[in-house]
Amino acid sequence: MKSVTEYLWFETRARREFVNITQQVLNIVQKSGVEEGLVLVSAMHITSGLYVNDDERGLLRDISEWTDRLAPPGIYHHHDTGESNGDAHLKNLLLGHQVVLPVTQGDLDLGPWEQVFYAEFDGQRRKRVVVKLIGE
Amino acid sequence: MKSVTEYLWFETRARREFVNITQQVLNIVQKSGVEEGLVLVSAMHITSGLYVNDDERGLLRDISEWTDRLAPPGIYHHHDTGESNGDAHLKNLLLGHQVVLPVTQGDLDLGPWEQVFYAEFDGQRRKRVVVKLIGE
Amino acid sequence: MKSVTEYLWFETRARREFVNITQQVLNIVQKSGVEEGLVLVSAMHITSGLYVNDDERGLLRDISEWTDRLAPPGIYHHHDTGESNGDAHLKNLLLGHQVVLPVTQGDLDLGPWEQVFYAEFDGQRRKRVVVKLIGE
Repeated sequence: MKSVTEYLWFETRARREFVNITQQVLNIVQKSGVEEGLVLVSAMHITSGLYVNDDERGLLRDISEWTDRLAPPGIYHHHDTGESNGDAHLKNLLLGHQVVLPVTQGDLDLGPWEQVFYAEFDGQRRKRVVVKLIGE
Repeated sequence: MKSVTEYLWFETRARREFVNITQQVLNIVQKSGVEEGLVLVSAMHITSGLYVNDDERGLLRDISEWTDRLAPPGIYHHHDTGESNGDAHLKNLLLGHQVVLPVTQGDLDLGPWEQVFYAEFDGQRRKRVVVKLIGE
Repeated sequence: MKSVTEYLWFETRARREFVNITQQVLNIVQKSGVEEGLVLVSAMHITSGLYVNDDERGLLRDISEWTDRLAPPGIYHHHDTGESNGDAHLKNLLLGHQVVLPVTQGDLDLGPWEQVFYAEFDGQRRKRVVVKLIGE
């Protein structure tokens, strides 16, 4: 069994930003020489999401607006600590913070429209994603 | 390390349909001879969900109605492209599009009521799920 | 490839309770001797969630209240069977029932605030979580 661990760093210009990281993950897989396995892609901060869906401009707006409807900015108990990002924590839970991608014949085994997104909800500072690949 | 990759195809009669695929996944595990490992079951289309819960008729209706409450059919930016399935994309994100199941002693290591469901939200056409098993 | 399977048992005093299980999972990893791999932590009951986020008292209240807003107690079709926990099933789907954690150099490879939580929504009885580690 082979294993590879890499970290992707993000420091988005906007507080909220959706970044397509499919190619970065694919590069890690191809460099590894692993032909068959699983790769975990997981946000290491609790105010960012990680999900798979279509890279379509309108849909990205829909997803962003939807997270505001279901996890709106507002007043949260968490803010008693001095924080102001309670909604970003809930958005992380709503979208999920990780995906596991199959690696088949040295490639990401994704469907035709599947793209991997890092969804930043509290950016403008350095944050990390771990990419952990195991296989052979 | 052994690995097995199989694809399940679906073409549901209704636009929305929930399909219990536990037995199909179990068949793949048993055929593989893998005794200990992890199996990823992941929708390859971005308008279908994949989740684990109870196979109870009333609950299936509850889940379906709940996805309509939280991700209602309606007007989305995504529809500017000519699509009409914006809500199905959000339902995919709400339920999640994948699960990872433990394989122990050659069997799916599930709790007493855990069943694996493919949740189709934009069906009536051929769509795929990837099943990727690694283990020994 | 090495694999380890362990089960954590819970019987919460309250019907709803959030339990930080990070240390328990770490103990399993360290006892195993696995240096590099993936560990799946997955609720075996369909009315409990499993998620990663901050262990902050106010935030825990926020998350609990948020699950009540999006998956409220109430009348569900599922209750025709005699059950009364329909909302707990939906909360399981909302938060998700499993996480996969990277294991790097014999340690859980988590971000600075990432803690693993078992979220009980229908407790006061014995319930299980499976921890399945594969690696080397």
